[in-house]
Amino acid sequence: MPDLHDLAVWHMPRPPYAYPLAQERIRVRLRLARDDRRLPSVQWSDRMGWRGFDERAAMRWYANDATYRYWEADLTPVEGRLRYLFRLDDPHAPAAPTWFGEQGAAPHPPRAEWPDGYFHWPYLHRERFVTTPAWLRDAIAYEIFPDRFAHGSPPVAPELIGQWPGADARAAFWGGDLVGVIDSLDYIAGLGANLLWLTPLFQSPSNHKYNTDDYDRIDPHFGDDAIFQRLIAESGQRGMRVILDGVFNHSGLNFAPWRDVLAHGVASPYWGWFDIDGAQADVRARNYRTFAQTAAMPRLMTANPDVQAYLIERAQRWTRMGAAGWRLDVADEVDPSFWRAFRREVRAIRPDAYLVGEIAYDAARWLEGDQFDGVMNYPLRRAALQLFAPAGQRPVGAPEVDDRLDGGGFLDALSRIRAWYPGWATAATLNPLSTHDTPRFLTAMGGDLARLRLAFTFLMTYEGIPMLYYGDEVGMAGGHDPDSRRPMLWEPDERQRALLADVRALARLRREHPALRGSGFRPIATADRSAAVYLRGVSGWEELPGEGGAPSEVALVALNTAATPTTLDLRLGADPATMPGALTWPAHARHARDLLSGAAHTLADQTLRLEVPAGGAVILAPEG
Amino acid sequence: MPDLHDLAVWHMPRPPYAYPLAQERIRVRLRLARDDRRLPSVQWSDRMGWRGFDERAAMRWYANDATYRYWEADLTPVEGRLRYLFRLDDPHAPAAPTWFGEQGAAPHPPRAEWPDGYFHWPYLHRERFVTTPAWLRDAIAYEIFPDRFAHGSPPVAPELIGQWPGADARAAFWGGDLVGVIDSLDYIAGLGANLLWLTPLFQSPSNHKYNTDDYDRIDPHFGDDAIFQRLIAESGQRGMRVILDGVFNHSGLNFAPWRDVLAHGVASPYWGWFDIDGAQADVRARNYRTFAQTAAMPRLMTANPDVQAYLIERAQRWTRMGAAGWRLDVADEVDPSFWRAFRREVRAIRPDAYLVGEIAYDAARWLEGDQFDGVMNYPLRRAALQLFAPAGQRPVGAPEVDDRLDGGGFLDALSRIRAWYPGWATAATLNPLSTHDTPRFLTAMGGDLARLRLAFTFLMTYEGIPMLYYGDEVGMAGGHDPDSRRPMLWEPDERQRALLADVRALARLRREHPALRGSGFRPIATADRSAAVYLRGVSGWEELPGEGGAPSEVALVALNTAATPTTLDLRLGADPATMPGALTWPAHARHARDLLSGAAHTLADQTLRLEVPAGGAVILAPEG
Repeated sequence: MPDLHDLAVWHMPRPPYAYPLAQERIRVRLRLARDDRRLPSVQWSDRMGWRGFDERAAMRWYANDATYRYWEADLTPVEGRLRYLFRLDDPHAPAAPTWFGEQGAAPHPPRAEWPDGYFHWPYLHRERFVTTPAWLRDAIAYEIFPDRFAHGSPPVAPELIGQWPGADARAAFWGGDLVGVIDSLDYIAGLGANLLWLTPLFQSPSNHKYNTDDYDRIDPHFGDDAIFQRLIAESGQRGMRVILDGVFNHSGLNFAPWRDVLAHGVASPYWGWFDIDGAQADVRARNYRTFAQTAAMPRLMTANPDVQAYLIERAQRWTRMGAAGWRLDVADEVDPSFWRAFRREVRAIRPDAYLVGEIAYDAARWLEGDQFDGVMNYPLRRAALQLFAPAGQRPVGAPEVDDRLDGGGFLDALSRIRAWYPGWATAATLNPLSTHDTPRFLTAMGGDLARLRLAFTFLMTYEGIPMLYYGDEVGMAGGHDPDSRRPMLWEPDERQRALLADVRALARLRREHPALRGSGFRPIATADRSAAVYLRGVSGWEELPGEGGAPSEVALVALNTAATPTTLDLRLGADPATMPGALTWPAHARHARDLLSGAAHTLADQTLRLEVPAGGAVILAPEG
Repeated sequence: MPDLHDLAVWHMPRPPYAYPLAQERIRVRLRLARDDRRLPSVQWSDRMGWRGFDERAAMRWYANDATYRYWEADLTPVEGRLRYLFRLDDPHAPAAPTWFGEQGAAPHPPRAEWPDGYFHWPYLHRERFVTTPAWLRDAIAYEIFPDRFAHGSPPVAPELIGQWPGADARAAFWGGDLVGVIDSLDYIAGLGANLLWLTPLFQSPSNHKYNTDDYDRIDPHFGDDAIFQRLIAESGQRGMRVILDGVFNHSGLNFAPWRDVLAHGVASPYWGWFDIDGAQADVRARNYRTFAQTAAMPRLMTANPDVQAYLIERAQRWTRMGAAGWRLDVADEVDPSFWRAFRREVRAIRPDAYLVGEIAYDAARWLEGDQFDGVMNYPLRRAALQLFAPAGQRPVGAPEVDDRLDGGGFLDALSRIRAWYPGWATAATLNPLSTHDTPRFLTAMGGDLARLRLAFTFLMTYEGIPMLYYGDEVGMAGGHDPDSRRPMLWEPDERQRALLADVRALARLRREHPALRGSGFRPIATADRSAAVYLRGVSGWEELPGEGGAPSEVALVALNTAATPTTLDLRLGADPATMPGALTWPAHARHARDLLSGAAHTLADQTLRLEVPAGGAVILAPEG
């Protein structure tokens, strides 16, 4: 048997273990066992010159979770071509490195003429440079379910008002519209949000409109082309962008091609757009593939070039009309060839369009650079539920086992998600506490506003795009759908004004401190299991372009989930010999200020004794 | 720290760890540490029904190398959708299974409503069912370098005859042509080969023609359209197929679009077909990207849709004219979008076209079902060199270290390659001992014909397509290019007739015994490090359709690389409790015959004492 640590070593020459950056450079990652103390480096060369492996790159610490430790390095291919090999140096046996290539671990490098011993990025095509929009680094998102958000003045569909909830809250309309959204733009901008995600707007018989009947038309309950364009213009004037919800996995039952298929069976020119058994579609028998088991949502054959051309043309039209990007529904069930074409064609219209997929688990397959910029980060929401859920109060749908996380487990979970994705995807991830498909976070917290505020503090100080689900910021409650889709609380007396002020203040901190939105992240160990402490900062290896800030920008975040105050002894330095490249509190910065309370703190040798209030947080930035 | 064995567990929901089969089924693999004795199974369900995980599939042993053990199971998605989780049962702690999902190992399964704990194949599109041609299972390939193979009678280019080798064997022409190939078809068919790979035929100024000047025209030194069509017709009459060499990574300097770019600079409509610095291409300064550092081979921008359309149209034309597939040159440096379109468009012309990429290392990235059927198996050639190279005689280009393999190391190397790829790709791999880009295998063996014969015995009894490089079968020698491209030995007195007879006999055995070309493979342990012993057979889980044979078809292959005879004590059974599904010698088959010598053998309890001659082999099949 080889060294047991060697069993844990993993690399593959593809994302997220190898991926191109914005320029001619490849970032490579290596996974080692968490307690493997060997220091990795990369030796590399051109693939064709058959020259020696004279280039050697040190690796830097990137992340560690409970099981593994992840390392990174950036390599520059020679005329596009790269061959490389990892080298693990044991400080206790410096003359006996281990080499790790495609054939596994070995005490010496393979021969240069046998390529299968090495890893290869055979050619880096210019078309594969990463093109994630720079503006995402500064984005804060706000999700609106238009039927429940705001009535315009005057309302677009006055006939709907008063119907909700009626006998069936799941099916009823409340009558919100796009004029109402326009009327609310100052409120949303005041929250600090600058990215609006509207759930589907196109014509559909339902209140949620995830069964599209006409991809060419804004639903008349919501508005029309002119109102949509006014929304784009008025939000643009406030520095806000609008992304649309693209439902391309399935259609509604009044979608013209589906109606044609119902009328003409296999003779319909649209027969190949759907996946139907036999020669005639039958809605009652549901003899066709659907979204979930929903007869009203016939699945589209998204590998079919005609279907692709039809839907992508519509997406281009709305992009031309001002959509800044697309949130893509049931993205994981659509054929990847659809998304590759979608990205190419939408980006041709708007090179900085944001494309984010609805995928609720490890989405690395869709984050290779040719499909999405990011995904909805449901695993992050899960980790937040597991950390912030009050003791004795299980999240909605509690199982037999107590699967809550302590502070260390929470940081491990975040690190594991970071290791799933390229850095540019982590930066472009949409991070929600609640969505229209989940219970409200406040309800999952048993109604405890302090816990919701603490979760917002995490969200606003973490990498990726913080996403507010309409009303969470004023303390809206709600269980599973339809309860999570109650009308927006506009009545001043019903709104949690202190919470709203806190959310605004946190968004402002994020805006003012590049450290809180950079890609630097390092968990800090504490003895208190109720605390989650991490450094945030602008890293020297940011993957999204943009202002960013100086590489020394750093902040310390300490969250205390306990009902009592805690005192933490924190060591914020990182030994460059064992943790090279890790984010660290600057050695010269001996004074710090809590951005929340304004209190001053003093450090000695990058260490700090810090008191964190019960259920509260400290966000420390260097001063002077 | 978790259990050290847990550190080695690996799965990812993509090839080769998960991949669709020919029908609505997903094959999943799991990697465990080699000495991990836990038995894995898979629990799975629909993704949408939120039903319990009531479906459970046992896993079967698939392979093991020096470090890991690989398991497999086949799962049937529910209306296309699949969610699954691995379960590891320790026979010594039956009540405490370990669960393995996207978040790693845990003592209990994650909650059903948190998808990120599970693995997902979110939707299996019909277009993604695997369509590898069934005929590959019975293929034996023969590679021809046309300029060096045979002069036609009459020759197509008599003016070239007598020029080779001249002052520069690398550049000179010998004058072989397609008429010569046609005249040799009976000879090639007599070898048992039924798949001809011809290195490039299209017009080019070089003898190798890897710098294409005109993709529309057979090089006039080789023939013309009519001669090509005669080759297709006459080989077809002998049950043979012809695949062409597609060089789409780069062109030659007389390629019309390149000439246009040279003439008109950035003003040329073909400017975007190449990757040129500045505003004017300059061959002397080589201010453009090329294949390797070869100015005469300007790299094509294969992500450019115009380039794709142009080249794929030509490939379609030659496919219509009878090409049974394509060997694709420098396949790893061409943009993957090119290969996806290439497969789609060529398969539209010929649904059973064989597409094989030239990739010299782990090619899993290209073997996900949407690019190639298989690749050239250079890693297998390397393993064969490492096993069969005579003691004290290093392969050409010997390094400082002795990296020869013993029998066990060779079987480990084969197993590692098997674990790299989906089974359908392993079955469709082109397995060479020599190619036009390598020294001849005989030369690497120091001229030892017995070692070459033993390597042929391996090749003809292993999975994948055995490939003969013209002349290897008659004992041609040759070092690196151009020495490996000497003219074919046709002179009877210069040919190794015994070797030729052996190759024919081995090909006949392969044809007559489905076990030798099935997908079943299991290394058999021996005490003798000079021996490599394995079971071969038709597995119950073949991935290529076709006749196949009965699932109980089995053969034992024993290779002895030593200069002395050896006696091996072999145990051919496999305990179904610890190695479920592994290929095994049938318990009832107590009589066996050596297919090479005709000798009879008797087994007791699936065990056998077997004498293998010095540098020789035994191929044992059950009898009676």
